[in-house]
Amino acid sequence: TCMYGRYTQELGVYAKEEAARLRESGQRRSVSDRSRTLDLLEYDKGRCAKCRICTVRCQKFLISRVGEDWIFLILLGLLMALVSWVVDFCIAICLQAQKWMYGGLDSNVFLQYLAWVTYPVVLITFSAGFTQILAPQAVGSGIPEMKTILRGVVLKEYLTFKTFVAKVIGLTCALGSGMPLGKEGPFVHIASLCAALLSKFMSLFGGIYENESRNIEMLAAACAVGVGCCFAAPIGGVLFSIEVTSTFFAVRNYWRGFFAATFSAFIFRVLAVWNRDEETITALFKTRFRLDFPFDLQELPAFAVIGIASGFGGALFVYLNRLIVQFIRKQKAINRFLMKKRLLYPALVTLLISTLTFPPGFGQFMAGKLTQKESLVTLLDNRTWAKQGIAEDFDYIGHSQAWKHPQLNVFVTLVLFIVMKFWMSALATTIPVPCGAFMPVFVIGAAFGRLVGESMAAWFPDGINTDGTIYPIVPGGYAVVGAAALSGAVTHTVSTAVIVFELTGQISHILPVMIAVILANAVAQSLQPSLYDSIIRIKKLPYLPELGWGHHEKYNIRVEDIMVRDVRYITLNCCYRDLHNVLLTGHLKTLALVESAESMILLGSIERAQLQSLLSQQLGRPRRLEYIRERAAAEKKHLSVVSNPGSEDGSQRASQEVRFQISTEESSFSPTRPVPQKPLKPALKRPSVVERPTEIPTGKKHTYLHKQLQTTEFPNSRLMKQSERKGIGYLIDPKGDDGDVEDDMTIREIAEWEEKQLDEQVNFNNCKIDPAPFQLVERTSLHKTHTIFSLLGLDHAYVTSIGRLIGVVSLKELRKAIEGSVTVKGVKVRPPLASFRDSGTSSSENEATELHKLWDRHKSMSLPREHTPSESDEKSQ
Amino acid sequence: TCMYGRYTQELGVYAKEEAARLRESGQRRSVSDRSRTLDLLEYDKGRCAKCRICTVRCQKFLISRVGEDWIFLILLGLLMALVSWVVDFCIAICLQAQKWMYGGLDSNVFLQYLAWVTYPVVLITFSAGFTQILAPQAVGSGIPEMKTILRGVVLKEYLTFKTFVAKVIGLTCALGSGMPLGKEGPFVHIASLCAALLSKFMSLFGGIYENESRNIEMLAAACAVGVGCCFAAPIGGVLFSIEVTSTFFAVRNYWRGFFAATFSAFIFRVLAVWNRDEETITALFKTRFRLDFPFDLQELPAFAVIGIASGFGGALFVYLNRLIVQFIRKQKAINRFLMKKRLLYPALVTLLISTLTFPPGFGQFMAGKLTQKESLVTLLDNRTWAKQGIAEDFDYIGHSQAWKHPQLNVFVTLVLFIVMKFWMSALATTIPVPCGAFMPVFVIGAAFGRLVGESMAAWFPDGINTDGTIYPIVPGGYAVVGAAALSGAVTHTVSTAVIVFELTGQISHILPVMIAVILANAVAQSLQPSLYDSIIRIKKLPYLPELGWGHHEKYNIRVEDIMVRDVRYITLNCCYRDLHNVLLTGHLKTLALVESAESMILLGSIERAQLQSLLSQQLGRPRRLEYIRERAAAEKKHLSVVSNPGSEDGSQRASQEVRFQISTEESSFSPTRPVPQKPLKPALKRPSVVERPTEIPTGKKHTYLHKQLQTTEFPNSRLMKQSERKGIGYLIDPKGDDGDVEDDMTIREIAEWEEKQLDEQVNFNNCKIDPAPFQLVERTSLHKTHTIFSLLGLDHAYVTSIGRLIGVVSLKELRKAIEGSVTVKGVKVRPPLASFRDSGTSSSENEATELHKLWDRHKSMSLPREHTPSESDEKSQ
Repeated sequence: TCMYGRYTQELGVYAKEEAARLRESGQRRSVSDRSRTLDLLEYDKGRCAKCRICTVRCQKFLISRVGEDWIFLILLGLLMALVSWVVDFCIAICLQAQKWMYGGLDSNVFLQYLAWVTYPVVLITFSAGFTQILAPQAVGSGIPEMKTILRGVVLKEYLTFKTFVAKVIGLTCALGSGMPLGKEGPFVHIASLCAALLSKFMSLFGGIYENESRNIEMLAAACAVGVGCCFAAPIGGVLFSIEVTSTFFAVRNYWRGFFAATFSAFIFRVLAVWNRDEETITALFKTRFRLDFPFDLQELPAFAVIGIASGFGGALFVYLNRLIVQFIRKQKAINRFLMKKRLLYPALVTLLISTLTFPPGFGQFMAGKLTQKESLVTLLDNRTWAKQGIAEDFDYIGHSQAWKHPQLNVFVTLVLFIVMKFWMSALATTIPVPCGAFMPVFVIGAAFGRLVGESMAAWFPDGINTDGTIYPIVPGGYAVVGAAALSGAVTHTVSTAVIVFELTGQISHILPVMIAVILANAVAQSLQPSLYDSIIRIKKLPYLPELGWGHHEKYNIRVEDIMVRDVRYITLNCCYRDLHNVLLTGHLKTLALVESAESMILLGSIERAQLQSLLSQQLGRPRRLEYIRERAAAEKKHLSVVSNPGSEDGSQRASQEVRFQISTEESSFSPTRPVPQKPLKPALKRPSVVERPTEIPTGKKHTYLHKQLQTTEFPNSRLMKQSERKGIGYLIDPKGDDGDVEDDMTIREIAEWEEKQLDEQVNFNNCKIDPAPFQLVERTSLHKTHTIFSLLGLDHAYVTSIGRLIGVVSLKELRKAIEGSVTVKGVKVRPPLASFRDSGTSSSENEATELHKLWDRHKSMSLPREHTPSESDEKSQ
Repeated sequence: TCMYGRYTQELGVYAKEEAARLRESGQRRSVSDRSRTLDLLEYDKGRCAKCRICTVRCQKFLISRVGEDWIFLILLGLLMALVSWVVDFCIAICLQAQKWMYGGLDSNVFLQYLAWVTYPVVLITFSAGFTQILAPQAVGSGIPEMKTILRGVVLKEYLTFKTFVAKVIGLTCALGSGMPLGKEGPFVHIASLCAALLSKFMSLFGGIYENESRNIEMLAAACAVGVGCCFAAPIGGVLFSIEVTSTFFAVRNYWRGFFAATFSAFIFRVLAVWNRDEETITALFKTRFRLDFPFDLQELPAFAVIGIASGFGGALFVYLNRLIVQFIRKQKAINRFLMKKRLLYPALVTLLISTLTFPPGFGQFMAGKLTQKESLVTLLDNRTWAKQGIAEDFDYIGHSQAWKHPQLNVFVTLVLFIVMKFWMSALATTIPVPCGAFMPVFVIGAAFGRLVGESMAAWFPDGINTDGTIYPIVPGGYAVVGAAALSGAVTHTVSTAVIVFELTGQISHILPVMIAVILANAVAQSLQPSLYDSIIRIKKLPYLPELGWGHHEKYNIRVEDIMVRDVRYITLNCCYRDLHNVLLTGHLKTLALVESAESMILLGSIERAQLQSLLSQQLGRPRRLEYIRERAAAEKKHLSVVSNPGSEDGSQRASQEVRFQISTEESSFSPTRPVPQKPLKPALKRPSVVERPTEIPTGKKHTYLHKQLQTTEFPNSRLMKQSERKGIGYLIDPKGDDGDVEDDMTIREIAEWEEKQLDEQVNFNNCKIDPAPFQLVERTSLHKTHTIFSLLGLDHAYVTSIGRLIGVVSLKELRKAIEGSVTVKGVKVRPPLASFRDSGTSSSENEATELHKLWDRHKSMSLPREHTPSESDEKSQ
């Protein structure tokens, strides 16, 4: 007993300590933990209590740590590094297998061709089929979707485990085929998937992972990890992900991104060292350019030319990509055929591309036998290929030999490579497999840069510098510049410059790269949207276009010029009929609630679904049965106490009481048994729910009535049809199991009853109201509106003037205004008189008059109120 | 005449074309241009019309271009590059002069010492005095101030030309003295000054430079330019400026920053090439580390140690810096003495530091003769100084010789350098001259890294790699890592890593640098605020602390837990007395306007100043004179038409009419001559304005009255005193020149009149009301509140519940809540019952009851309204 006593005492002290410590930590967690400790005290008075305490302590420690951001970020980084490395490894094996097959069959060209072509076709077809079956959301880059998700829009099924599996396997197969596809876009998506799944998994331990804004922050960090572990470029990854996915960026996220991306890149490179691929941690595509004199000042014009040309090229690439998609969509015959055989299009495209790159065939003129990685390594080589236009003295070693053709000049090979790869990449990225376009574009850019560099080297064989020392021109530097410029132009980012430095491990060309990237961006941004924005438009994702730079007319447009003045609203004292009418005509997801139609003071906004459930409750069967029951009771009462003169008043009070019950609790319709609440939600989602009762045999009479209702000429039948047409489903409880009351109402009676119900005033008590929807003032500038919309991820905002609702601006209006003012430069978006409102005095006058009205109204209203002392009496009750 | 005719015709066509073109461009500009063209048509029918047309055309083209952002950014970049280069040039000359003096006097050590010490003392004293006299705002780094300005707070005099001149000249002198000071912080400020001045200058041509949000965007770009042209580091500059100045960053600004910073860095480096300092464009502190094997994987722990140690060091630096400032402030004796002789403190500090660095003295043990730049160059050298602990085989060339001491080990020199420079830099940055702390910290970090690197090199003389090839350890790489880590720790930024790459021109150490910087940040951020935040706190600038990372309790605090429930508000039907009382008790800059005290529906917010002017109008002398005039007129009327029974009604209507006049136009008090409006503004600013009339001889009687007013026991005298105490100045027009009416009211009459005036209802018509102040809901989380406050740069926000004002949150509450939850970890900020509000149902109930009240009120209000048809009649009138 002494032992027991000691243990329990110890446990008691421990429990106290625990309780004290737990009091300090979060409450939610403490409750569960304390109960666990208490459980322990009750049951575990056995001998392994000490051991258990230890376990609990460890568990608690782990749980408390799990909640920290950095644990999450480290796990995410580790996971993504592993995924990236495994994917790279598998891709390398796939590519090696193809080469091995191709090399082994060198006796017969036809067999070689078959092997060269069949392999990618099979892989791509498998990839397309697999993603199509498992998760069609995994198709494509994923950056446009992530941009939309980070904007606050919920895209269904984009962050599930299925999508993760489909994306990883699909991507591996697609890249293993050797097509000109990239892994960087999909990796942004994969990292976000990882983060979403990881945070779901970790929310099993702690409660904080359920917070929405935290989730968005973690997704932003995940995007950085995606790029970071793909290129082993932490800084470039963070910046690229910011530029590509965000409009406004919280600097505190920046931190998270850096931490996770660095860790991820580190692990990714360490894995390569451990696998004996590398001797130490270095850049992915290490260059060995001259350090002391990287380039001459007089070479800068050439770099600028690369930048400008890349700008045009990038715009052309985006345009070509969109053109192909639109062409296939528009050509109905092709479309119909392809839709039937979903896998035919990928197979055909792959066949075409792989046929053209077949090394003994056309491929010999465009270094077709090199994989993407090999091409890039050779293009970034620091030796000059051509001197004085002749490829004679070029020391071809390793893969660089592929660029040499006995008959052709190296320039021709490069031009062919650029031209062919250009349209091939644009075509290949339209295949419905998980794939990105960054890497192919990067390689094309490098080739273009190399071409310019080789030309420069041929033009100035002894370099440009006139100071004595001969510094020959480094065409590899030009390739670096070209790669950064073209990928920057296609994605509309500047951070490709940083990615390039991290990829090559050299920053000596920083100024040429920066200049070229900025010029390329300036050209491309003025011609085309970015590739991701283009895809967003093609996919019709909900987006908000960027304010271009230099479009300063945006500062002069005001909200009042673009807002919709005809706002759908409901008043606090409206009846159900108004609700019904408003629901039929509007289209926004939420509706404004104003005090009254005269005052128009905005009180809040209500979701459409809430209003629909209000209506369905009012017109639903339970309420009708309740009515029947009440009527029967009243009749009985009337029969029994018919001589009592106070009966009318009593019944009135009773009905009021029932009314009150309804307002406080939903289940008060049938006091004996709660109304089944389950069908409410699905019923609201399904538009054709009205027809559902026909399938359920228990509600036969109901069904019959309903069918008649739908065929008769009564107004509420019209009402039902209208609702159906507009996709509004009122809940009509299909389970007619309130058997204690007989539904003996005729159709006419029901119609009359419904009409009566519609005339009642709406009771908003059970309704969830957003009490502070976002409000703008009529004189808010378009620029500020855009800022606020993209900052806060708004869908719409109400425009108020001294508390009065005067308009609404949704994403649509904003988009129109921005696009209108961007594309049609000559057309003014402002109404002719708008400039007169600019002066400060007029606005204050305007406000003053508004206020004056309000004041007048107030005065006239306050007078009668003083005459009614009943109000204060009511309140004091 | 034919000639004339032709010209005019041509001009007419031209004018038409012009008009058509102008119609398309901005209206404001077009008006001025059109008038110019018309002027041309009228006056210039002479022979040089053609020439003039050309000029006008060119001018117009230039003006239209000037409005574009990129012109502005290029000009800014160019200007800043020039400033940076000139400042660098002058600093170099100053330092050379010191060396020359010191070198020339090598015969006499005492003279040498005098020269060594006097030179910096004179320069620093001049710098301190110059900035003190011209613009005291130029003192210090400027980054804290820029952070505050970008947060939306207007700091006076911080962006003026005077400050620009003071900062540039003060900085040049301060750095020319050779003290351990940096130029990077001041350059951020200088670039912002440049941008502000440039935009002011360019607004002479176009109108768009007046937009506030655009100005903020340009300032953000300017900060990037500042860092970019200081270090020739465009990418690092952009990132550093983002991290240091912003909480939320618009990606569209990122673009601007990159563009301007790249251009600026380019010009800055090109100037060096043109000046024959450099052969071509390279990095500022170019390193020549090995490319193929930069570091071994097993060296990473050493890098991590540097990171962690730098984290502690950085926190210590910030703490030391604050300690010194606070010590000097607290020691009243010292403080009083130093305040008298403002230049003594800089002189003393300089004397101390320069004495200690005197090369033949203690300076020989700490490489005292090297300038900051020279030290950095030697520290980043790629050769090893020490092998096996002996500095024998170190090939000392150039400045590196300074590190060698015949008696001392190189390790001791390094340790002494680090320790001495550490406190010297912390001390030197407290001198009131324009100076930054980045560069000194950077150098100390490099020295620390070098120390670790040399130790490693001594420990592993043959390198760590076990694979056969000997790769000796590169201590220069450690120096790079240390520099980035320590400067990152002091400033709480990660982008120092990028700056380091751009400064050295090598990115091969990216992973060690990133790891060290992140570790240093993690340590430093958990110990101390950043140097800039520390200065913000010392200077008591209005700031909002950051949400730390990992402090996830912030997601659980709601606005209702931190808001002030006792809101000062004014109602629409309040009288002037209420206004007066509210002004006396409140402290916020704006006051909430609600519909009525019962409904509490928020209509908008009014600035304090507006209310003060309302009150002063109501109680001011013009109004009283008006009253006297009216009374006199009424008396006359009464005397003349005493028998008319309708007179009372008439006079009432008259007074109402006057009331109406007042409400529409301010000058209607004295219809013959407008009331002088000028003294209104200064009067409101000055708290003691009530006493001002005593100084003006014209208002003698008024003054007398006032003096009496202030001594008598009347309530309004008390009122005056109260106003004085609270710093509220009512305008009492000092010019008593309304001589046409005799101010014959006695004191008692005035008091009575004022009392009567105070009981009148406030007329808000002339008041500027912000109709949509920012609103939060009571359940908004602290995290979201912080986000919104920092996103939108708010000062306060009202908390509403279904349109009803229930509380207010200002920056103060938010700061308290954040700091409370950050520093006192155990204390919960939430009230005990807050967790119960977390579940969804309770909140909707809460909302429902709120709404219920509103609804009841509405019902009770709508009933009497129905009984009063007069209202609608009134409206139809």
